[in-house]
Amino acid sequence: MVNNTITAAKGFLSAGVSCGIKKSGKLDLGLLVCPTGAKASAVFTTNKIAGAPVQVSKKHIKSKKILAVVVNSGNANACTGQEGIQNAIDMCSQTARKIDTNPHNILVASTGIIGEQLPMKETSSGISKAAKVLSASAKAGRNFATAIMTTDTKRKEAVRQIKISGKKVTIAGVVKGAGMIAPNMATALLFISTDVSISKPLLAGALKGAVGDSLNKLTVDGHQSTNDTAIILASGLAENRAIKKKSGNYKLFVKALQDLCEELAEKMALDAEGATRMFKVVVDGASSKTQAGQAGRAVAEYPLVKCAVNGGDPNWGRIICALGSCGVKLNVKKLSCRIGDVTVFSKGVPRKFDKKKAAKIVSGRKHTITINLGVGKWNDFCYGCDLSREYVKINADYHT
Amino acid sequence: MVNNTITAAKGFLSAGVSCGIKKSGKLDLGLLVCPTGAKASAVFTTNKIAGAPVQVSKKHIKSKKILAVVVNSGNANACTGQEGIQNAIDMCSQTARKIDTNPHNILVASTGIIGEQLPMKETSSGISKAAKVLSASAKAGRNFATAIMTTDTKRKEAVRQIKISGKKVTIAGVVKGAGMIAPNMATALLFISTDVSISKPLLAGALKGAVGDSLNKLTVDGHQSTNDTAIILASGLAENRAIKKKSGNYKLFVKALQDLCEELAEKMALDAEGATRMFKVVVDGASSKTQAGQAGRAVAEYPLVKCAVNGGDPNWGRIICALGSCGVKLNVKKLSCRIGDVTVFSKGVPRKFDKKKAAKIVSGRKHTITINLGVGKWNDFCYGCDLSREYVKINADYHT
Repeated sequence: MVNNTITAAKGFLSAGVSCGIKKSGKLDLGLLVCPTGAKASAVFTTNKIAGAPVQVSKKHIKSKKILAVVVNSGNANACTGQEGIQNAIDMCSQTARKIDTNPHNILVASTGIIGEQLPMKETSSGISKAAKVLSASAKAGRNFATAIMTTDTKRKEAVRQIKISGKKVTIAGVVKGAGMIAPNMATALLFISTDVSISKPLLAGALKGAVGDSLNKLTVDGHQSTNDTAIILASGLAENRAIKKKSGNYKLFVKALQDLCEELAEKMALDAEGATRMFKVVVDGASSKTQAGQAGRAVAEYPLVKCAVNGGDPNWGRIICALGSCGVKLNVKKLSCRIGDVTVFSKGVPRKFDKKKAAKIVSGRKHTITINLGVGKWNDFCYGCDLSREYVKINADYHT
Repeated sequence: MVNNTITAAKGFLSAGVSCGIKKSGKLDLGLLVCPTGAKASAVFTTNKIAGAPVQVSKKHIKSKKILAVVVNSGNANACTGQEGIQNAIDMCSQTARKIDTNPHNILVASTGIIGEQLPMKETSSGISKAAKVLSASAKAGRNFATAIMTTDTKRKEAVRQIKISGKKVTIAGVVKGAGMIAPNMATALLFISTDVSISKPLLAGALKGAVGDSLNKLTVDGHQSTNDTAIILASGLAENRAIKKKSGNYKLFVKALQDLCEELAEKMALDAEGATRMFKVVVDGASSKTQAGQAGRAVAEYPLVKCAVNGGDPNWGRIICALGSCGVKLNVKKLSCRIGDVTVFSKGVPRKFDKKKAAKIVSGRKHTITINLGVGKWNDFCYGCDLSREYVKINADYHT
């Protein structure tokens, strides 16, 4: 059977165990290990209240080689002061001892409740337990994917394979959800393993671009959590020839990575709390890329648009209202809007359109809203998901 | 019986009739008339897609005297191109003919569905009908208040009386709701009548300040509609001595107007679609007033905070997360947060607090969240309301 988990790339072992951080007894500690050491790059939350593991990993990512990532779910270790920082450092130290390396070669991530200290006895025992069952099997990969989940309803994994200089290169990714907020708030965590041989700067560039055009384009709640983290580890074991900047091989790798991240972002959107469908907002004709992105985000986050999508309603008025009030430059007389391939508004005037057809498009699992602001040449896009009664239920009924 | 409607101030007549714009047969056309002519000032939506009545009223507000405001509900006359503009002008002309004045002395406002042309036959007959039943009675005032409603569940009126140079001065206001979006989207409309004698610049300053600190501080959906309009008319019939800038009398008037607008904003928040409770976010210690306002708004609009308030949950983690990601300067080590009088977070660390007491505060009809960002001396505030299943229901189940 094909291994479509995080261990699909050569040179990676993983594990996912239960150690009691989650009271439910579900898996809550994951280890991803590259015994030969991996080149690594990461993108962290821009939230000014960064969780302790983010603060520690930001330092460790500077190491030449990363040998492991240790992740727990059930507790975000955020807003936990100096004690929290020490606990994140201890998670790295304990993991480092198990695989005989320096703590600086370990990255750490946490997701779950905020404002409570990590139960370190349980966490330590989890690290020991996980280190004993490390494996390159698909099962080990699935356990890792399960161990990082909070309110996610399913594991979210993806794999891409490409050929570079005649060698098979694998990229494998696993993600936990955005807008998965219970028990208190949570986090987008993305881990990618690859066996590509690549320089650290090129790896960093590729990750930044891929995350920027996928996970960072996905808005569920409109806010970055304290713990959002995306990490890529490259073992180099595919033994492809060195990849040069701007080469065809680099573009090939970037394309595959981008594609993988898009698949994962889509899986996140559709598994967001209460979400039943997703949509993409494509904005063109903007006066700058920033303005295009801002307009797309305004539409994707507007509660009334999200409710309309939930109801399967091609409610263009709410889209236009969001655009008019989001602060971007637009020319009403040139403004246009399409829902799928149905033009609903153009040159500042509503168009007669087939409402049944448009409603069918919006009622689908995913659809695209295309906007032209009529003031420039720039474009950008944003992913959103619907707002459902279930979302409110989950987030109103949960009590701290 | 005390008249607590828009006709409470001397010199105003009003009417509210049904003319068939709303298919339900409910009142849908209102007239507010000051036969002697009033000094007027207005604040309009900043949405770049302004409705036709906003565009017309923006011109007419420059007239020396305003004799009437004509308002319809059931159709916003927005996104209706040149035909819509002509219809708004026609509403002014028809009203002007009825009260024998120039169309430029008439203001117009509309609220309801967007993207459809106004049924002008019905609208014209409504204007005729309303002009015939103009009255200074409380009943006429109530009819006006009812005629401007869309999904509002109740009329929202307020009156203040003060003494200026021995003369009784009355200020009366009526509002229709923000975040009342069905049938398609709608509008905050505020009309204030007063008999104070005051210069136009002072009247404009007072309105701007009062709206800025009340209705403009209220966020329900996070967006201004295409038709938001606030109008104040001053008949001057109280015959008070001239009010001077910076005088005690001016401050008295401003204070009363502010107070009235706050009462109306509160009524709007509590009658917002699906809302069950409201809250005020007070931000202090910011590096500028703009930053303080931005932080308050970020908290008040954050869906997770709104859901938590709906559930009566003192979920400080979501408040802190909203602050960290909204882009304002803050010092985590000095950051503090209170819910009512319960300190939940200070100096970057969560505090142990009485959860039952805090939950009781959040479960009330209104409460205050107080934040100190720890970086400066500036403060500002914002009003918000909860996000309920009912809100999603209303806005997902309505179909265009």
